[in-house]
Amino acid sequence: MAFPSIRGVVPILVTPFDEAGRIDEASLKRLVDFNIAAGVHGLGVAIGSEVFKFNEAERDTVIRSVVAAVNGRVPVVINSGAAGTDLAVHYSRRAEELGADALMVIPPNFMPVGAEEIADYYRQISRAVSIPIFLQDVVQAPIPPALARRIAEECEHARYIKVETVPVVSKVADMVREVGEALTIFGGAGGSYFIEEMRRGSAGTMPFCSQPAAFVEVWNRFQSGDAAGARDVFDRSIMAVNRLGQQGGDLFYALHKQLLVRQGVIRTAVVRSPTLRLNPTTQAEIDTLLAALVPTPRQFDA
Amino acid sequence: MAFPSIRGVVPILVTPFDEAGRIDEASLKRLVDFNIAAGVHGLGVAIGSEVFKFNEAERDTVIRSVVAAVNGRVPVVINSGAAGTDLAVHYSRRAEELGADALMVIPPNFMPVGAEEIADYYRQISRAVSIPIFLQDVVQAPIPPALARRIAEECEHARYIKVETVPVVSKVADMVREVGEALTIFGGAGGSYFIEEMRRGSAGTMPFCSQPAAFVEVWNRFQSGDAAGARDVFDRSIMAVNRLGQQGGDLFYALHKQLLVRQGVIRTAVVRSPTLRLNPTTQAEIDTLLAALVPTPRQFDA
Amino acid sequence: MAFPSIRGVVPILVTPFDEAGRIDEASLKRLVDFNIAAGVHGLGVAIGSEVFKFNEAERDTVIRSVVAAVNGRVPVVINSGAAGTDLAVHYSRRAEELGADALMVIPPNFMPVGAEEIADYYRQISRAVSIPIFLQDVVQAPIPPALARRIAEECEHARYIKVETVPVVSKVADMVREVGEALTIFGGAGGSYFIEEMRRGSAGTMPFCSQPAAFVEVWNRFQSGDAAGARDVFDRSIMAVNRLGQQGGDLFYALHKQLLVRQGVIRTAVVRSPTLRLNPTTQAEIDTLLAALVPTPRQFDA
Amino acid sequence: MAFPSIRGVVPILVTPFDEAGRIDEASLKRLVDFNIAAGVHGLGVAIGSEVFKFNEAERDTVIRSVVAAVNGRVPVVINSGAAGTDLAVHYSRRAEELGADALMVIPPNFMPVGAEEIADYYRQISRAVSIPIFLQDVVQAPIPPALARRIAEECEHARYIKVETVPVVSKVADMVREVGEALTIFGGAGGSYFIEEMRRGSAGTMPFCSQPAAFVEVWNRFQSGDAAGARDVFDRSIMAVNRLGQQGGDLFYALHKQLLVRQGVIRTAVVRSPTLRLNPTTQAEIDTLLAALVPTPRQFDA
Repeated sequence: MAFPSIRGVVPILVTPFDEAGRIDEASLKRLVDFNIAAGVHGLGVAIGSEVFKFNEAERDTVIRSVVAAVNGRVPVVINSGAAGTDLAVHYSRRAEELGADALMVIPPNFMPVGAEEIADYYRQISRAVSIPIFLQDVVQAPIPPALARRIAEECEHARYIKVETVPVVSKVADMVREVGEALTIFGGAGGSYFIEEMRRGSAGTMPFCSQPAAFVEVWNRFQSGDAAGARDVFDRSIMAVNRLGQQGGDLFYALHKQLLVRQGVIRTAVVRSPTLRLNPTTQAEIDTLLAALVPTPRQFDA
Repeated sequence: MAFPSIRGVVPILVTPFDEAGRIDEASLKRLVDFNIAAGVHGLGVAIGSEVFKFNEAERDTVIRSVVAAVNGRVPVVINSGAAGTDLAVHYSRRAEELGADALMVIPPNFMPVGAEEIADYYRQISRAVSIPIFLQDVVQAPIPPALARRIAEECEHARYIKVETVPVVSKVADMVREVGEALTIFGGAGGSYFIEEMRRGSAGTMPFCSQPAAFVEVWNRFQSGDAAGARDVFDRSIMAVNRLGQQGGDLFYALHKQLLVRQGVIRTAVVRSPTLRLNPTTQAEIDTLLAALVPTPRQFDA
Repeated sequence: MAFPSIRGVVPILVTPFDEAGRIDEASLKRLVDFNIAAGVHGLGVAIGSEVFKFNEAERDTVIRSVVAAVNGRVPVVINSGAAGTDLAVHYSRRAEELGADALMVIPPNFMPVGAEEIADYYRQISRAVSIPIFLQDVVQAPIPPALARRIAEECEHARYIKVETVPVVSKVADMVREVGEALTIFGGAGGSYFIEEMRRGSAGTMPFCSQPAAFVEVWNRFQSGDAAGARDVFDRSIMAVNRLGQQGGDLFYALHKQLLVRQGVIRTAVVRSPTLRLNPTTQAEIDTLLAALVPTPRQFDA
Repeated sequence: MAFPSIRGVVPILVTPFDEAGRIDEASLKRLVDFNIAAGVHGLGVAIGSEVFKFNEAERDTVIRSVVAAVNGRVPVVINSGAAGTDLAVHYSRRAEELGADALMVIPPNFMPVGAEEIADYYRQISRAVSIPIFLQDVVQAPIPPALARRIAEECEHARYIKVETVPVVSKVADMVREVGEALTIFGGAGGSYFIEEMRRGSAGTMPFCSQPAAFVEVWNRFQSGDAAGARDVFDRSIMAVNRLGQQGGDLFYALHKQLLVRQGVIRTAVVRSPTLRLNPTTQAEIDTLLAALVPTPRQFDA
């Protein structure tokens, strides 16, 4: 395998669309380049990519485009969890065939099942593939440390866990302490507690893809011992974006896409339906924030 | 359209599988015949069919098999909701192409959106098809009466609503009183309050498919004025099955499938992973109940 | 201590009110006698008693009345959990002073805290009293088996646990298997799965107080090896009441109080505000069920 | 009534404790003075004051101390909601007797009831008092605009609503548009979206009490037309405190109390049990933030 270990800043790509809601592959390619140029350590396709709004053909198109654009420069992580085990195996195999370097798999949670059934789900997926798997510990389907350990022990390819259940900071700390020798721990939650998570032993984070340079600088400064400098970059560049994007609903999609448009990276900020409509007041607030972050908008030039 | 109006008992079909978890079309055909022979007024494919565990090819297979087996004898309702509007349109059109007589569509709820966005989702689906739509009012995505009315007014094909939010009985009553002239109201919730719901104006229910004759008899007796007789059939045949099946988890799949196997309707009681394992004690409790309901098991004879 | 061990049927008393919503102590005394005459093994004051609607003076009145009426014939269990540790200690000490034989204590859940803080809450309560404590495992504040064990080991008086998280039957089984030697396990959930829970090792249940004779008969038959007879009593007497009472909302209070009025045990079926209003249709459904259970109503005769 | 209308910054007071967890009235008095000196427009006692951990005598002590310390300088708002209507009436009358200028009342939500029952709860409270009432729209018990309007029309004293359900910013906008002429709308949610809420028509907010000068400056600048200046104060002083305090659990109590100790306002940062323990890493992160906000700690001097 080309990538023996994934660490650092692994942004989840948004999916750029054209005005009719079709996948815009040219913008997606630029988005990949923009992130790699900023020094990210990997790229992902997941909920932040609106994958839950795709049919299977669209899912394939996005994976194929991302893999082609990345072209082996960094590892690509593809979300392949599902409400059924066979379906998750189907998505996982397909992602591997299309060139994914790793998978990210949410526990089944559509119907309540127990630890035994969840472990079995991961065992079946692990046996079906030959690339590493990130477990996802999310609010809808939390993974307690004891279950994470069991899955790590029983599943050859379960190697990472992305922790996003509240309180996230102490959940990361618990996971590092109790399962840290068996799984590599990543933070999530939009990167809001990136520094706190690194301080407790996380090996990276999966933030949005609109500010890769800032996240990479936070990572580099923190890893080189400059926690105060990392904090300064975070507070100056990232905190206000997170605050505005976390007001509830799915406003964060529009916010990050507009920030990418303003930087000349993608062509439109279209979010697929259903998505909260932006009224003029909200749009003005986004505009004010983006103008402060990117004083001179760049033109997209496909 | 062949079916100007859907009323009465419209069971949701389980999906029979073989030992390897593949769809067993011969059993599915017998299951359809068994239900139609019992006098049901329609048949559905939905959560009770484990559709959330299917890939798109399997989804097509099940719809195609059910439509072929039904062969126009009763209307077929197909679940086609999704977390994205385009995806729900995709599923809805496909279901219509494959011969569905009606659609059942859950509101989008993966990301929180508002009434405006939900109405827009239904408008786009309604414009894309020419068959009637059942709205689904479920715990994860409740539809208040005012929103149901708005959708009914704005969407040509929104004609029915299946009500399943708690307290279900009074929610059915509210919906009948406030939206009853615009939408036909169905009950749900496994048929546990079928009689109470009819008394408040529901036009039918969508129960499991393992006891169609009992549900049809409850319907016929109640509609002909014999509420006491309906109650007696319900309490004698249905209540104990519901009680055992509602203990939490997804035990109800195994329970209804085993009841169908014992009646010689389907070949195996396999439920796709993830599903709660049945330990010997639970299996013995199911056995005792089934033995009381179907003293002499019949052999499946494909 | 008079009661070395609590086992069997321990109904939670409703609180009878007069027409103005004041506690009706005469009815409460009759309700206690009615239950003891039926052979119950203990009595409780808890959520089923509407304690969350009482001020401290009313809480004292109810405990005092129940203790006086019981007069040592069976153990009395008093709910004394709270959102704060000091407040739970305050309620617990007060209950012991007023004569409680045991306490029932819900984990703190108003603000999310961890296992360490929950264990500390129970330690402080245990140190403040000298009577046994029932832990409460409820949907709003589940207690995993590992936490139950820890509390049992660290708290001298933690001796019982009432299990009510879903799926209840398998949760009881898990708790018996993993903590059964340290805690005595009770079922809950209105007694809907009383027999299934006994089969998995529960030592009793805490049902409503309107059908004590039926619950005691189920207990006696099951304990003496007659599971089929227990099932028959349950299905004939209890199942239909549970079904009607579990339709959502707080209808069960009115249902059980009306059943007690009809048996001549308490004077009114008043439930304190807020409580769902009963429309004539719902009232007629309750009337039909009660008429079947108690053909000849008895007069209350204070 | 002394205060015809409440607008602006109305912080919720923390309750200072001594090392043994007893209410520290001297610190409470200084906290009141500190806030009034900063120019706040009112003060409140609510969840942020840990009221849910108090017995009735302690509740009285806190209200009495706050009313005495304020001494008519600004209006005092007291939380008096409860799970039962009689209990909420009891708390509300008591608060009025002890000198509250207004009440804040959460809808009953311990048992699910309908709009009719919620309106009745507010009617009974409103009839029992002669001071204005803030409705509370919270995640556990949301108040849709139509219900807010109904309560405003039926309850003489229902005059305000504090909006805290997600997405908070658009919920404030909806409430202003649909009920703004009947109720005065306040924001909540720790003040995280104070400016956005004012822009949509909120008349004030109820933040924590550790940074009253900053909140008052944001209010004054925004009201005088200087939105950019307001934003600058918010981003510089408040945003980082909110970010750290919102990581989940109840860490915010310790954070705000420590910030007050560092400013010499209260004597200890004790939070009553249950409260999340602070490990050394978390404490160091709080220390770093507080050192940046208050470079020179002041000594408490009772």
